[in-house]
Amino acid sequence: MTRADRWLLPDGIEEVLPPQARRIEQLRRRLLDLLDNWGYDLVMPPTLEYLDSLLTGSGKDLDLRTFKVIDQLSGRLMGLSADTTPQVARIDAHSLAPEGVSRLSYCRTVFHAKAASLLASRTPTQIGAELYGEAGLGADVEIISLMVAMLEAAGVGEVHLDLGHVGIFRALAQEAGLTTDQQAELFDLLKLKCASDIDAWAAREVSDPLLASAFARLIRLQGDADSLAAALDQLAKQVPATAQAISDIRHVAEQVALRCPSTPIYFDLSELRGYHYHTGLVFAAYIPGYGDAIAQGGRYDETGAVFGRARPATGFSADLKVLARAGDFAVADKATIIAPADNDPALWARISELRKAGRRVVVAMTQDDVQGNAQLLRQDGKWQLVE
Amino acid sequence: MTRADRWLLPDGIEEVLPPQARRIEQLRRRLLDLLDNWGYDLVMPPTLEYLDSLLTGSGKDLDLRTFKVIDQLSGRLMGLSADTTPQVARIDAHSLAPEGVSRLSYCRTVFHAKAASLLASRTPTQIGAELYGEAGLGADVEIISLMVAMLEAAGVGEVHLDLGHVGIFRALAQEAGLTTDQQAELFDLLKLKCASDIDAWAAREVSDPLLASAFARLIRLQGDADSLAAALDQLAKQVPATAQAISDIRHVAEQVALRCPSTPIYFDLSELRGYHYHTGLVFAAYIPGYGDAIAQGGRYDETGAVFGRARPATGFSADLKVLARAGDFAVADKATIIAPADNDPALWARISELRKAGRRVVVAMTQDDVQGNAQLLRQDGKWQLVE
Repeated sequence: MTRADRWLLPDGIEEVLPPQARRIEQLRRRLLDLLDNWGYDLVMPPTLEYLDSLLTGSGKDLDLRTFKVIDQLSGRLMGLSADTTPQVARIDAHSLAPEGVSRLSYCRTVFHAKAASLLASRTPTQIGAELYGEAGLGADVEIISLMVAMLEAAGVGEVHLDLGHVGIFRALAQEAGLTTDQQAELFDLLKLKCASDIDAWAAREVSDPLLASAFARLIRLQGDADSLAAALDQLAKQVPATAQAISDIRHVAEQVALRCPSTPIYFDLSELRGYHYHTGLVFAAYIPGYGDAIAQGGRYDETGAVFGRARPATGFSADLKVLARAGDFAVADKATIIAPADNDPALWARISELRKAGRRVVVAMTQDDVQGNAQLLRQDGKWQLVE
Repeated sequence: MTRADRWLLPDGIEEVLPPQARRIEQLRRRLLDLLDNWGYDLVMPPTLEYLDSLLTGSGKDLDLRTFKVIDQLSGRLMGLSADTTPQVARIDAHSLAPEGVSRLSYCRTVFHAKAASLLASRTPTQIGAELYGEAGLGADVEIISLMVAMLEAAGVGEVHLDLGHVGIFRALAQEAGLTTDQQAELFDLLKLKCASDIDAWAAREVSDPLLASAFARLIRLQGDADSLAAALDQLAKQVPATAQAISDIRHVAEQVALRCPSTPIYFDLSELRGYHYHTGLVFAAYIPGYGDAIAQGGRYDETGAVFGRARPATGFSADLKVLARAGDFAVADKATIIAPADNDPALWARISELRKAGRRVVVAMTQDDVQGNAQLLRQDGKWQLVE
């Protein structure tokens, strides 16, 4: 069986069988209900779109990760959505076009030509929420708190949060007058998280020794707010352009700590994941024993601009199937009632009534070997439920 | 807005916005619960698979309808699933490998390079059920009754059923010694439902005048069981190879009528939809004002064979989004409670408690213009819900 599976399914693509499918479906409902209870309205973006609208405003990463097909009707290239966020941004900007705040949620399969990491599926079930129209830090606080609440509802324990801020890197890059190529180079180095490489790069490429040392410091700004306090003060003083972002990340950490007192919060200012579309505060949730972030997100205020309406935006997403594996939550199981294959209309009425009341009734076939917890039997001329 | 939509989305591909998305989600849950109450276990087949396993045992139609992409990891062709049935048959044959009966259900997006009809979406949300391991007519009766129950649960009114039987066409074709090419030609003519073309074709291609007249009769065998009784008797006598299939379809119609007394049942023996994988009884549900079948299915006993285990099989499917449009069902809507953005931990505790009880609480942002039905207000030092 396992051999056959491996033979049949491409790497990173899985099928979900019972009882795991039941578990995932129940988690899906629970989490969508939670998003709804926070005021987030469900949307269903198309899974296939013209490539130019799908990739508008997003980075090269997403392009490389997107499966392409030719639309036989128009001859144009279409892409399979690899990330829901830019599509929801388009929906907010174009299809809903509201004033004020809009809160949207989604849960659907996305497709990755290459998996995002060694651990990741190529067909993750992306579940998430996006908040548009609010530039204030209250939006960041709400989205991060909602992410924590979602992980809690999924029974994911020992979560810790990493906060970063793309604005700090941007401010330093601007002060140092880095070209786009230089920024991309440095970005690649920061992804590898190798401090000595960054020190060497900064010493070579950045003429101002003060700024060079600021870049070298950035990679080392990892830890909790208290232990980083002095270093952050110093960075803000050294490069005043970073002061606003540093003040923002501190404020958000304080507010989130009030709402999620049992979740440890760390800063990781070298974390620039999704730099290409994120513009401000970025965050991720980690758990012990799983190398990737289990949920992640951030601010991407500029994405709507390419659709004609730049709106402040922040959001997060996670893979529902990963949450179902990592989470410890109860799955309601139904007892099975076995009914005989009999043409008596009274039996059919009884079965129909039980099913409408939410009971699971299986009508036995000749070949059937289903196990039941109860039976419908004719006793004294009536169909009785015998447990 | 509408112009922008048209510009952005390919033909036959749609996005679903609130409140329609909420409606579809609620219908999805209701129908999956119904399938579960009938004993059908949810499975989630992969949306992307190697093309050879995806198309194994299915017809040319499905191949032409399937989007293809290259797998960057293996260099092999993959297809986007255009029909869930063959995949569930593979899961039954390979991954579950049970003895006896298995009942499986699913609900997921499938992809059509070309829409199945002018009305149809290219990304329908296919919801359906499959029953494996039972060759007896009881399986056909259960599947058809379940389809009717599902349409009823979706609030789809004025449904009528069309029953057909691929076995009758097969028996005639075999008796007449038709080649595969001739069968395909006749099949195309039958799809057009033009009686005079079929008369002419049969007169030209079938040497035995008795069989030629039987083909000519087939296209005219449309109507309720009573009005067709004499014609069916005659066909069964004229071509004894058709007698079993004719007896079967009559038996199933009688049994289904007992279980679904308010659903009119018609025979349409020229209906061979899905001839390439169907092998026995086929059926479809229609409603006034919608040209396509709103749900459909049939028996396909041979499909598992290519995966190593030929299992009796029957099932049906429908497009959830079409059901949501056609169905008249109540959508539960939640009242919205507005809470102020305040850091008081007592407020956060109160909000959290309300949300856990299933209430929808939105925390007002500075830009927020969300309309509420109730408010959380501080009164006498406590956070009170004011409706």
